[in-house]
Amino acid sequence: MVLPQNMEELFNMMEQKLYTGVICDTLDELGYRNQAMRENIRPLSEDTVVVGYAKTIHAVDVYYIHENSYDKEIEAVDSIKPGEVVVASTNSSIRNGLWGELMSTASKMRGARGAIIDGLIRDTRKIKELNFPLFCTGYKPVDSKGRGLVIDYDCQIEAGGVTVNAGDVIFADVDGVVVIPSDVFDVTIQRALDKVERENKTRAELFEGKLLRDVYDKYGVL
Amino acid sequence: MVLPQNMEELFNMMEQKLYTGVICDTLDELGYRNQAMRENIRPLSEDTVVVGYAKTIHAVDVYYIHENSYDKEIEAVDSIKPGEVVVASTNSSIRNGLWGELMSTASKMRGARGAIIDGLIRDTRKIKELNFPLFCTGYKPVDSKGRGLVIDYDCQIEAGGVTVNAGDVIFADVDGVVVIPSDVFDVTIQRALDKVERENKTRAELFEGKLLRDVYDKYGVL
Amino acid sequence: MVLPQNMEELFNMMEQKLYTGVICDTLDELGYRNQAMRENIRPLSEDTVVVGYAKTIHAVDVYYIHENSYDKEIEAVDSIKPGEVVVASTNSSIRNGLWGELMSTASKMRGARGAIIDGLIRDTRKIKELNFPLFCTGYKPVDSKGRGLVIDYDCQIEAGGVTVNAGDVIFADVDGVVVIPSDVFDVTIQRALDKVERENKTRAELFEGKLLRDVYDKYGVL
Amino acid sequence: MVLPQNMEELFNMMEQKLYTGVICDTLDELGYRNQAMRENIRPLSEDTVVVGYAKTIHAVDVYYIHENSYDKEIEAVDSIKPGEVVVASTNSSIRNGLWGELMSTASKMRGARGAIIDGLIRDTRKIKELNFPLFCTGYKPVDSKGRGLVIDYDCQIEAGGVTVNAGDVIFADVDGVVVIPSDVFDVTIQRALDKVERENKTRAELFEGKLLRDVYDKYGVL
Amino acid sequence: MVLPQNMEELFNMMEQKLYTGVICDTLDELGYRNQAMRENIRPLSEDTVVVGYAKTIHAVDVYYIHENSYDKEIEAVDSIKPGEVVVASTNSSIRNGLWGELMSTASKMRGARGAIIDGLIRDTRKIKELNFPLFCTGYKPVDSKGRGLVIDYDCQIEAGGVTVNAGDVIFADVDGVVVIPSDVFDVTIQRALDKVERENKTRAELFEGKLLRDVYDKYGVL
Amino acid sequence: MVLPQNMEELFNMMEQKLYTGVICDTLDELGYRNQAMRENIRPLSEDTVVVGYAKTIHAVDVYYIHENSYDKEIEAVDSIKPGEVVVASTNSSIRNGLWGELMSTASKMRGARGAIIDGLIRDTRKIKELNFPLFCTGYKPVDSKGRGLVIDYDCQIEAGGVTVNAGDVIFADVDGVVVIPSDVFDVTIQRALDKVERENKTRAELFEGKLLRDVYDKYGVL
Repeated sequence: MVLPQNMEELFNMMEQKLYTGVICDTLDELGYRNQAMRENIRPLSEDTVVVGYAKTIHAVDVYYIHENSYDKEIEAVDSIKPGEVVVASTNSSIRNGLWGELMSTASKMRGARGAIIDGLIRDTRKIKELNFPLFCTGYKPVDSKGRGLVIDYDCQIEAGGVTVNAGDVIFADVDGVVVIPSDVFDVTIQRALDKVERENKTRAELFEGKLLRDVYDKYGVL
Repeated sequence: MVLPQNMEELFNMMEQKLYTGVICDTLDELGYRNQAMRENIRPLSEDTVVVGYAKTIHAVDVYYIHENSYDKEIEAVDSIKPGEVVVASTNSSIRNGLWGELMSTASKMRGARGAIIDGLIRDTRKIKELNFPLFCTGYKPVDSKGRGLVIDYDCQIEAGGVTVNAGDVIFADVDGVVVIPSDVFDVTIQRALDKVERENKTRAELFEGKLLRDVYDKYGVL
Repeated sequence: MVLPQNMEELFNMMEQKLYTGVICDTLDELGYRNQAMRENIRPLSEDTVVVGYAKTIHAVDVYYIHENSYDKEIEAVDSIKPGEVVVASTNSSIRNGLWGELMSTASKMRGARGAIIDGLIRDTRKIKELNFPLFCTGYKPVDSKGRGLVIDYDCQIEAGGVTVNAGDVIFADVDGVVVIPSDVFDVTIQRALDKVERENKTRAELFEGKLLRDVYDKYGVL
Repeated sequence: MVLPQNMEELFNMMEQKLYTGVICDTLDELGYRNQAMRENIRPLSEDTVVVGYAKTIHAVDVYYIHENSYDKEIEAVDSIKPGEVVVASTNSSIRNGLWGELMSTASKMRGARGAIIDGLIRDTRKIKELNFPLFCTGYKPVDSKGRGLVIDYDCQIEAGGVTVNAGDVIFADVDGVVVIPSDVFDVTIQRALDKVERENKTRAELFEGKLLRDVYDKYGVL
Repeated sequence: MVLPQNMEELFNMMEQKLYTGVICDTLDELGYRNQAMRENIRPLSEDTVVVGYAKTIHAVDVYYIHENSYDKEIEAVDSIKPGEVVVASTNSSIRNGLWGELMSTASKMRGARGAIIDGLIRDTRKIKELNFPLFCTGYKPVDSKGRGLVIDYDCQIEAGGVTVNAGDVIFADVDGVVVIPSDVFDVTIQRALDKVERENKTRAELFEGKLLRDVYDKYGVL
Repeated sequence: MVLPQNMEELFNMMEQKLYTGVICDTLDELGYRNQAMRENIRPLSEDTVVVGYAKTIHAVDVYYIHENSYDKEIEAVDSIKPGEVVVASTNSSIRNGLWGELMSTASKMRGARGAIIDGLIRDTRKIKELNFPLFCTGYKPVDSKGRGLVIDYDCQIEAGGVTVNAGDVIFADVDGVVVIPSDVFDVTIQRALDKVERENKTRAELFEGKLLRDVYDKYGVL
């Protein structure tokens, strides 16, 4: 299959045809076995699917109110480019809701396709109304001021136990969040599309009542 | 804005116009920075909002069946007054479902506006049918008899890591559960209503495509 | 009440008339006080109810790709009989999604009424579309190959902290997963049906506005 | 072997000749497979061994200073009889140091042979100087007043995940804390003494350089 | 009692005459009830006692090697003044050994009386040989470079769940680590010395065989 | 420096001259940044140092007594060769003491230099008397029979979060357990010995009172 040249079309096609399971199986085969984030990073809505380039943000716990607390965070959001997905590391903090509605609104207006927060968020209701795809570890209504601080962005981070670099592609759905390293992106997508075909055939034959043993021996997928 | 004198009208207005994020920001400004419960206390339904006076209940783990196991718990429920929200502490136990449907029904008939259980509950389906606003840390179908015991009520407790006194006001929505101390209640509500206005203006300008930097500099909210 | 002789009718009746809370209360009375699994095993959909004979599967963590990785798992699934519910132990692993859509499809075609996985799963969206009742501890898109291995089935296992034997009956709903030992199955169902009646009367009188004290003294259920 | 009739002699003999491993193996054979407390209950000194009748104490978390906070605790300590070992349940609280030096001193003067605290303690240095055998989950210098409260004693409790009744015998050493139910006490001790013999022979032959396979086949212990 | 005017004499006297339990009881009476750090911060040696002014250091998790990784940390250590105790916050990270032998040596040469690390350390053997009093949450031999970064010092931090400001006095022994706020330092020490006296009398009478009830009624300490 | 050709001499030299910190720094430089096991794997004695070839053992949780429960374990132990260190994976189980005294004795007689158990052990006292170097996550006196089962050995495992292959070299001391991959063994040892020299010089100059800034700039080690 020839992949769309246009980034938006490509990402939309991926959101429709692929899913994290088939992406992970493909990355496994390519030797990338630790690309799925921890299981506690969950979507706001179960039908959320989001694909895009990682826009990394690095936040840390702080214990007093820094001057210009929000400066780096505002800078990071204002520098988002179309096709990006925010990926924020917070040392998995449960001390504050790092991300909220206004940040989501601003990100969306810059072209962000969604956000993956390895930490808590707030303004959940409004973010859902905004229809902004978001994954997080939970919810807490307190602000980051004096609790969390963005110290860097567009840098290498670790989120949900996975290393993320600017330029990696994020693929997230109800099963979790996967990081596709930029240098195996094309081959991963091609092979995953192919594996979907074999899964479809496996499913069809199972629905005919065949034993799993026989169908697995035929198509080799599970 | 002049707040409604009538308790029910006031609480209803709060449920409609306010949300936990803006309450927490206001409490932060007033120097009350630890008023949001732990992130694992979650609502049965994501659209639940509940406001009311804290009716505290203190339960503990026990390891044999006490005589008259339910006496204090029944007494607590029967003494609920209109406008109250049950807030139960269980040392965050995961041994039993302290709260259930019949307790919810009895509470609602006394005028309770909801319940916050820092512990597990059961009869989830029926509580949802009853439309009784409830927050808890999870679900377990086993009864408290021989596992948990109410030893006190209308006393100072700690729930979700926050100190709660009878008379404090509980504000809970999808982002979490907040305790508003009684002596800053009025000022908190007034300021929170004002902050909502500024957030609305911020949002509106972000939707016009302005940078977060510029809008934050203008309204000072995030 | 005379219980249906036909297994399918019996299990369907149970799914409609009973719930885990009343089952647990009955098992408590019979001296079986540790039959409810840990609270982190949750249904895919809140309205899921599943009843059936336990089909136990024992998986363990592995750290390299075993030859014929899937053999035992395929064998287990292909040997499922109508009326069974898969119950899988994984030492509560969070390393992989042991169970997925194709396994669900194959199980359903053999007559499985659902699955209880004390571990993570994947292909959540498709399993929901399949309408296959499933409980698990969470979601992770990576495959079991080289991470988890089925080493046995139809053997005694521990899932969610409860001992499960082939032949025990599983009863699971939104409040959790309960294991009914085979030798007290009949008496448990009979008594649970009776307790439902008393709970209905309690509820009715509470809705009339009676105090919990009075209603509890009359019916003795809570 | 004829066991000493005198309680003190018996317990002293046990402390010298037996160890928890051999006690657990014997209880396993008798069908008591959950008699060893959780691994986080550790001795103050690695060479501590303590045997005695369980004197149970039940403490719970509280969140305000109760009137006569210490009354039950003092009553419990003053009622200790020679040959007893304090076993305290605190719902595994990490909020305070329930037990301390003065309690240890008072207990020792009443004849207590040691204490097992499923919770934190304080005054560690002085308790070691006192040479009072003590096991606990850790250390915290804050008092129980307003944090923990003894609500019962000489009752059934759960400590370290094991049910303990007054009259059960506690056997604790560097490997952990074991509860010997009163009705299998004699048979447990007899068989354990016998197993020690076989372990000695196994060890001796291993030191001669024999293979584990051969020695295990001969003595059947590991 | 007249406290020594000389800082070193004062701190030495405190190390000899006081202990954390009596300090915490005094702080409790003064209304400071959350001054003891979490129980997982433990001394290298059980007989370690350390008193001194808090020299705060704020480290955070990072995920790539920053230029001049060690600059702030070196600056912090080189600015230590006699009588200070390093108190380091690392968001309780378990990713690296933030502190090690050379840091301990350098600190000691500047006059540091010890260090409290709410995180892991390395070079344990050499730090013990150096006889430098140190508390930490554990041990890990990997360096901080690319894993942890000091971003600030002499600022307000939270360590072990307690707020620490430069100028507060640290008192740590085998029972844990206590933070004495600077504005109640004198009164705390005076009252604690007085309480030690009453504890001595209580202990003496308990050793005479008196009941805890009677001795507690007489001296009011436990 | 020319490394000893004789394995035993080499390992003894390493135990005397090197330590885990310097090994990890060297592995970091070589790009192996995840070679130190989790911090909860601790030595029986703080002065234990152990070096040797990894003899991997893979145990898993089981829930009933398998026939010939001990067969694989005995086989594994009897096949130990001089210079090896047992490294056992148990999915970090806390259900039983997998390893004990007789296993230690048998291992030592085959030439094992020590054991690293990512799980609990028993017979601690006797293992210390035997002077067998051992690291583990804790202690529990119950046997593995019916709780844990060795299913494989000399295979790739994960222990303490680190991948271990037969032939890798284990280096463990009070700071933790490090896995040196076989293909960088020589270069690691050579470079580590060199780094020790620079650390010695750094230490010496710090003891002369020089600032850390100056000494670090000179030798570049910390």
